[in-house]
Amino acid sequence: MARWEPGARERLVMAAVDLFTEQGYDATTVTQIAERAGVTKSTFFRHFPDKRELLVAGQETLSRLLAEGIAEAPPGASPLEAIAAGLERASNALGPANRELGPRLKAAVAASTELQERDALKSVSLAAAMTTALIARGVPDPTAALAGELGMLAFKRGYAEWSEGDPDTGDDLAPYTLAALKDLRAASAALS
Amino acid sequence: MARWEPGARERLVMAAVDLFTEQGYDATTVTQIAERAGVTKSTFFRHFPDKRELLVAGQETLSRLLAEGIAEAPPGASPLEAIAAGLERASNALGPANRELGPRLKAAVAASTELQERDALKSVSLAAAMTTALIARGVPDPTAALAGELGMLAFKRGYAEWSEGDPDTGDDLAPYTLAALKDLRAASAALS
Repeated sequence: MARWEPGARERLVMAAVDLFTEQGYDATTVTQIAERAGVTKSTFFRHFPDKRELLVAGQETLSRLLAEGIAEAPPGASPLEAIAAGLERASNALGPANRELGPRLKAAVAASTELQERDALKSVSLAAAMTTALIARGVPDPTAALAGELGMLAFKRGYAEWSEGDPDTGDDLAPYTLAALKDLRAASAALS
Repeated sequence: MARWEPGARERLVMAAVDLFTEQGYDATTVTQIAERAGVTKSTFFRHFPDKRELLVAGQETLSRLLAEGIAEAPPGASPLEAIAAGLERASNALGPANRELGPRLKAAVAASTELQERDALKSVSLAAAMTTALIARGVPDPTAALAGELGMLAFKRGYAEWSEGDPDTGDDLAPYTLAALKDLRAASAALS
């Protein structure tokens, strides 16, 4: 079986994240990112308007998928069943490129205050997207707010475990995020 | 009764936040902040090493107080009782200057992507400080992680309600954050 090969967009994201780790976010230019990814600068600009957007694009897609999965859960679904539907929708959109990116992104974030702030905004945005989608389903506040945080934790924890595992197993992300949600649900019962 | 008067440090923070709203974080200089606050530049530097630290200082103090309150809760306290002790410790350290700051900080954050990232990092840091303090008490993961998020939500929601209320009532922050924690605990029971 042929090993999975990333496309230009995936190579650009990985090159950027590696360069951010090596030399910092500010010091990294679009020219350097394109060169490292083995593509031209115009290929970069076909995929991303600028360096910043390269980090934001994935986050916006993720928030949209989480919200869509929650919106389309069956009418009788409980808040956490709706969260599970959102996690499943978003998880199924992530593949090997996202798995390989995990540890590299973690290294880049550890090395840069600027990327820590961006990563924090990502967590807050994912939780807010899920909370908003639950409120649209009629889930009352603060239940929706708490469920949104729980969904965010489930996504982050499931993704961390998946991306730190052996990529050659080829297993999907969804079982990881759903297992994390189950653990958090049990924790929620223990708390209250 | 004399109206409460802010000191130089409080005036510097408020001047900075207002200037960030009016003209953006990047465009605001230490000279402008000092001028608006009616103090000299050297007074600014007696309180803060730079413009950035002016925003970080409060967050670090808050994280420390939350963690101390959790650490010093009675040995038999449940995770949420320990969180309540942390919220009480931190809330009691905030006074009229912090209350007046609330709506102004909200306006500044709404106006600036950079401050949104900083504000997100603040939420993530507060939750992490509480989670770490609970783990040190022997609370297992992911219960500690979830309780940390719950404490962060309680602090943010209680603070928002307090700072949007009438400052002339002179009421303390603690009843607001503790009431928010109670609501979130009920939400947690409803979820699981």
